[in-house]
Amino acid sequence: MKERGWHILNEDVSLPVAVLHQSALENNLNWMNRYASASGVRLAPHGKTTMAPELFRQMRDAGSWAISLATAPQVAAAHQAGISRILMANQLVGRANMQRIARMLEQGLEYYCFVDSLANAQALSHYFDSQGLTLNVMLEVGVPGGRCGVRTDEQAMALCAGINSLPGLALRGLAFYEGVIGGEDAPARITAFTQRMRALALTIYQQKGFAPGTVSITGAGSAWYDLVAETLDGPSLPAAMQVVIRPGCYLIHDTGIYEQAQAGVMSRSALACDIGGDLISSLQLCAYVQSVPEPGMAIIGLGKRDAAFDAGLPTPQWFARPGQQKPRQAPANWQLSKIMDQHAMLTTDADCELQVGDIIGFSTSHPCLTMDKWKYIAVVDDNLCAHRLIKTEF
Amino acid sequence: MKERGWHILNEDVSLPVAVLHQSALENNLNWMNRYASASGVRLAPHGKTTMAPELFRQMRDAGSWAISLATAPQVAAAHQAGISRILMANQLVGRANMQRIARMLEQGLEYYCFVDSLANAQALSHYFDSQGLTLNVMLEVGVPGGRCGVRTDEQAMALCAGINSLPGLALRGLAFYEGVIGGEDAPARITAFTQRMRALALTIYQQKGFAPGTVSITGAGSAWYDLVAETLDGPSLPAAMQVVIRPGCYLIHDTGIYEQAQAGVMSRSALACDIGGDLISSLQLCAYVQSVPEPGMAIIGLGKRDAAFDAGLPTPQWFARPGQQKPRQAPANWQLSKIMDQHAMLTTDADCELQVGDIIGFSTSHPCLTMDKWKYIAVVDDNLCAHRLIKTEF
Repeated sequence: MKERGWHILNEDVSLPVAVLHQSALENNLNWMNRYASASGVRLAPHGKTTMAPELFRQMRDAGSWAISLATAPQVAAAHQAGISRILMANQLVGRANMQRIARMLEQGLEYYCFVDSLANAQALSHYFDSQGLTLNVMLEVGVPGGRCGVRTDEQAMALCAGINSLPGLALRGLAFYEGVIGGEDAPARITAFTQRMRALALTIYQQKGFAPGTVSITGAGSAWYDLVAETLDGPSLPAAMQVVIRPGCYLIHDTGIYEQAQAGVMSRSALACDIGGDLISSLQLCAYVQSVPEPGMAIIGLGKRDAAFDAGLPTPQWFARPGQQKPRQAPANWQLSKIMDQHAMLTTDADCELQVGDIIGFSTSHPCLTMDKWKYIAVVDDNLCAHRLIKTEF
Repeated sequence: MKERGWHILNEDVSLPVAVLHQSALENNLNWMNRYASASGVRLAPHGKTTMAPELFRQMRDAGSWAISLATAPQVAAAHQAGISRILMANQLVGRANMQRIARMLEQGLEYYCFVDSLANAQALSHYFDSQGLTLNVMLEVGVPGGRCGVRTDEQAMALCAGINSLPGLALRGLAFYEGVIGGEDAPARITAFTQRMRALALTIYQQKGFAPGTVSITGAGSAWYDLVAETLDGPSLPAAMQVVIRPGCYLIHDTGIYEQAQAGVMSRSALACDIGGDLISSLQLCAYVQSVPEPGMAIIGLGKRDAAFDAGLPTPQWFARPGQQKPRQAPANWQLSKIMDQHAMLTTDADCELQVGDIIGFSTSHPCLTMDKWKYIAVVDDNLCAHRLIKTEF
């Protein structure tokens, strides 16, 4: 990068480009760490959102207990980048995937994965025991119609006994993902489910069903982490038990589904309000006006290849003519009406002053599926000047 | 790669994995080249679909006139890989993008881009003329409510005159994209629009509005290329004029929206039927059963991170237990009911025999948005044995 940086508004870089605002990243990192401290839980932020090892290291250095990931290749990318404690919030399935994890265990990685069937437990036991290794696992419980996880306490107790009967496995905790519980009464159902998980974990603990050492109860994506953290209530658990929450989107955040979810957190949680401030969307996409073919319509050089589109289209935040020092706020009635692979259609006003070559900054909804479109993301200061690139490992 | 190859069903590779069937690739390459020959048009396949320079070279070597692309970075990736004639089926906007293209022109790239406004023409003229370069452009015409392109013949003629008044630009053809025309009567409207484009190009040609040399009329995505090719009717045009079609999905194809579109081609075009055979979906995703948490439900280790989901979810084609030599055909009633970032929910039968660790092969719909999820794609033989990797440059 240039010593003085690369100015987006001065056309120093090829657009479209994805940028992360440094000030927002720092805000979000600090905010969530304060929330975790206040609620007495540990953080294992889900790294799948960004798959950016530099951001993993920042979250680790800020005090996260572990980084969560979803697949063996994701674990390999993080381990390669120096992350030494990883929670794979998923089943480890398949010979080649087990082989990859085994080599990392031999290199010193502290690793945990979820198990929700005796068949998978037996396959893992067979492989890891044959390698002279012990695999840390957490028993996953799910909800009917949901995703992975045994459905009933009886199934959980039976699987617990099954895991403990197998060599090469150490049961280190109880895991769940409440994000698949939806509907109008989701908060009440999530709270009830989390209460059940707390009781189940305590039962297994009291029956000495976990391996000796620290025991984790882990749940929580980015939408309901307050309910999970405050219902599990880490400080009230036995000293050997810890609560680990796995929000993944807080560092990037958005102006769509996670902004809404965070508004829910702030409306529910006195703890979240008391710590002051809030999460801020840190990711923007900067793109050119390619064409203004009709009054009130601009075609933007930005598409499904550049931005998530599964939870609302990107939202115009600002616009500028190249060379201008400061962008101006986009009118509230500008909006994307359609997105194609490499283009988006922006609805403006009939007398809109936008010209071909103007630059528009968009915020997004669902950071995971925007991040995975970019190999490099520029980190910018408040003047939209980029000073470094963050590499992603999708 | 191993000398003997890597067998998917023998778990030689980490799943999920994207594979391209060599036999289907060859079939599709040959089929579309035969169609282009039969209809007397040239091919400039849209490379954005795969962004795989190895596949660009295969299409070039099989006789394509050029490779189409959408952005300056895509052009750079193709040029770097040895593609020497590129049609950028889009506006070239912004200083850094112009700079990238100018450096490639100096290195000998034959390049064309679309222009649909005097403002853009002036910006291009200013930049390329200042560099002592001449930029080949094609005048883009669009439809009301569509994407880029001037809307009327009058606007087109005015822009033609404008381009010809500017230094540093050479007008090499007329361009359009009919794929934004939808609705029940799309075939009739596309045919009428294409007839208008043919007449407009001939008018500009007769008025000596194009630069001396070969003049292109270019349109056609993957859905309506027969209507465009057969309506433009290249063999009946003046010798200096050629028709260039830009289908991008034929090499990969799918079992969704492009399978449907191709069925439309086969129902309309005697030429397409006469050449024999048809396109075949060449891309599959192979993934594990991660969990069978309830009767009739399997959770698959495959998600929005791995597959397009904007035009129908992936379709189960086959399944196998690791170590089996041959996969079995998936029952017709198996289907994905939901997809999340890293998981998909498969609905099966209550007495389904699927187990954790079984492998399922899925076909997809909309190849562009599956291809861009993968840095490497394995090319497999008919036994699902991979012999080489294709690298993508998204």
